[in-house]
Amino acid sequence: MRGVAELVRSTATADTLSELGSFGGLYRVPRDVRNPVLVASTDGVGTKLKVAFLSGRHDTVGEDLVNHCVNDILVQGARPLFFLDYVGVGKLEPGTVEAVVEGVARGCRANGCALLGGETAEMPDFYAPGEYDVAGTIVGVVEEDRVLDGSAIRAGDALVALASNGLHTNGYSLARRVVFERMGLGVHDPFPGEDGTVADVLLRVHRSYLRALAPVVERGDVRGLAHVTGGGLTDNVPRMLPEGLDARFDRSSWEVPNLFRVLQREGGVDEAEMFRAFNMGIGMVAVVPAERADAVVRDLTGAGEGAWIAGEIVPGDRKVVIS
Amino acid sequence: MRGVAELVRSTATADTLSELGSFGGLYRVPRDVRNPVLVASTDGVGTKLKVAFLSGRHDTVGEDLVNHCVNDILVQGARPLFFLDYVGVGKLEPGTVEAVVEGVARGCRANGCALLGGETAEMPDFYAPGEYDVAGTIVGVVEEDRVLDGSAIRAGDALVALASNGLHTNGYSLARRVVFERMGLGVHDPFPGEDGTVADVLLRVHRSYLRALAPVVERGDVRGLAHVTGGGLTDNVPRMLPEGLDARFDRSSWEVPNLFRVLQREGGVDEAEMFRAFNMGIGMVAVVPAERADAVVRDLTGAGEGAWIAGEIVPGDRKVVIS
Repeated sequence: MRGVAELVRSTATADTLSELGSFGGLYRVPRDVRNPVLVASTDGVGTKLKVAFLSGRHDTVGEDLVNHCVNDILVQGARPLFFLDYVGVGKLEPGTVEAVVEGVARGCRANGCALLGGETAEMPDFYAPGEYDVAGTIVGVVEEDRVLDGSAIRAGDALVALASNGLHTNGYSLARRVVFERMGLGVHDPFPGEDGTVADVLLRVHRSYLRALAPVVERGDVRGLAHVTGGGLTDNVPRMLPEGLDARFDRSSWEVPNLFRVLQREGGVDEAEMFRAFNMGIGMVAVVPAERADAVVRDLTGAGEGAWIAGEIVPGDRKVVIS
Repeated sequence: MRGVAELVRSTATADTLSELGSFGGLYRVPRDVRNPVLVASTDGVGTKLKVAFLSGRHDTVGEDLVNHCVNDILVQGARPLFFLDYVGVGKLEPGTVEAVVEGVARGCRANGCALLGGETAEMPDFYAPGEYDVAGTIVGVVEEDRVLDGSAIRAGDALVALASNGLHTNGYSLARRVVFERMGLGVHDPFPGEDGTVADVLLRVHRSYLRALAPVVERGDVRGLAHVTGGGLTDNVPRMLPEGLDARFDRSSWEVPNLFRVLQREGGVDEAEMFRAFNMGIGMVAVVPAERADAVVRDLTGAGEGAWIAGEIVPGDRKVVIS
């Protein structure tokens, strides 16, 4: 296990100016951006943390957090510059916070993002022994005339879906209820139909789509992006839609992964609720001109992502239709 | 009580580009900075929150958090651009989170800082009913050749102290033990020697020194700044000192405020520990050339701050001497 200072150094980029121990972290606005707009987002990991506590595996939730944040600013066309983390903990136990920060640093390195600062607060009256909460803030940059806001989306555009690899960071309250209470499984039990334990499956790291999507966004093939987080396709896709348009997904274009089908069956959850609570196999949705859709799918697939044309933009009133 | 969306709008600046509901917040890098360096910091409020819980007063801790962060980047010469908050809460109770955000927004407005985003996470398994944790991240900007890093500090420079108005956000675990356990006081009892209750005194809002210090920093009169947070003068002042220099404070230059004297006496805390746990009446220390010290004190006093010459820089090894 490496110390926090070394982990922080491992993430430094050419524009990182400060060392650990400064009051604030220093980062040069990249000189290759003419009219820089900063894009910032703060998030937590939610109750996925409980699975980490149960399984004693603390080194992945930090990467979840970074990837979640990277995707959140990517949808506005931004690439990440730096990240700061906050860990509130009941009692500092050797190794736990370091493991969390190790995950954060791994996520930062993979996304070319500096871990610029952070705060660990020991608050024994707040958190149960062995427990903690983690929050993170990302700051990225985009050229002002390249901000993605969905305004270029037109009827007839294609919806390109990017595959998720699990729950990412949403729906854990419901998933934990189904898996631990209704199914009576423990974290070390095999997960039905999956090659791994409950912990393996529920802790799969939220995918970052930066590497695959950045070149496609860069060359102007993307008119809108929606990161499928809490609220699922149902609530997140409308956030990028202009007035007068719907996103119609063709349910037969993909097979909902086993994980979600098990949760639906064992939890007796209806379809509409499933699409609101979970990503159902789609972690990101890109809106691209119909004539570019095949090329985009090919590029994303070539970059290692599962990607397919999952529907189209149609006249409507800013809602999602799944049929 | 205003809604969160309205609170957020109330903080918008000329460079704020996004509305609430975007995946990430957008902020234009100010065009009047030639070589912009971003300065970022994340922090929490610590166990000052417990006093807020006990007294049911939730609308000031957010302002504490903003002011703390503003001061943290001010010490590197930066002015704030935007802020993002994270609130983890056991159960969303009507009014509580809004009150917290109201404090955040008030702090943002007072410091000319946009509240660009935030996250409220309801996690019933994590936080006790009625309790929450708050973290915040600030991003500011400074000209690259105006970054304050203490390297200009010389022996003979004056230490100018800026008065705190209470505990700010540090030392609350010790203070709560002394006040609630040893002294047996409740939050609504009068605080000995103060014009107010225990809650009034312990919840006094962390001062922001931005308004008073910015003009002094701007004209180049400041060679180093130390924000007196956890670790007190003892641990924070050395963070700005170059090799080969000490900061020598003249203990007779100020009267330690009643609040700290009560905590020391009732808690039986020794002097060295007091200077490490608490700010002891000094919230910020500025290092200025000796010949500018009187003018700086006059300007800070004119801006409404308590300010005085509290010592000087002497040869040494990056430590604080209080004598």
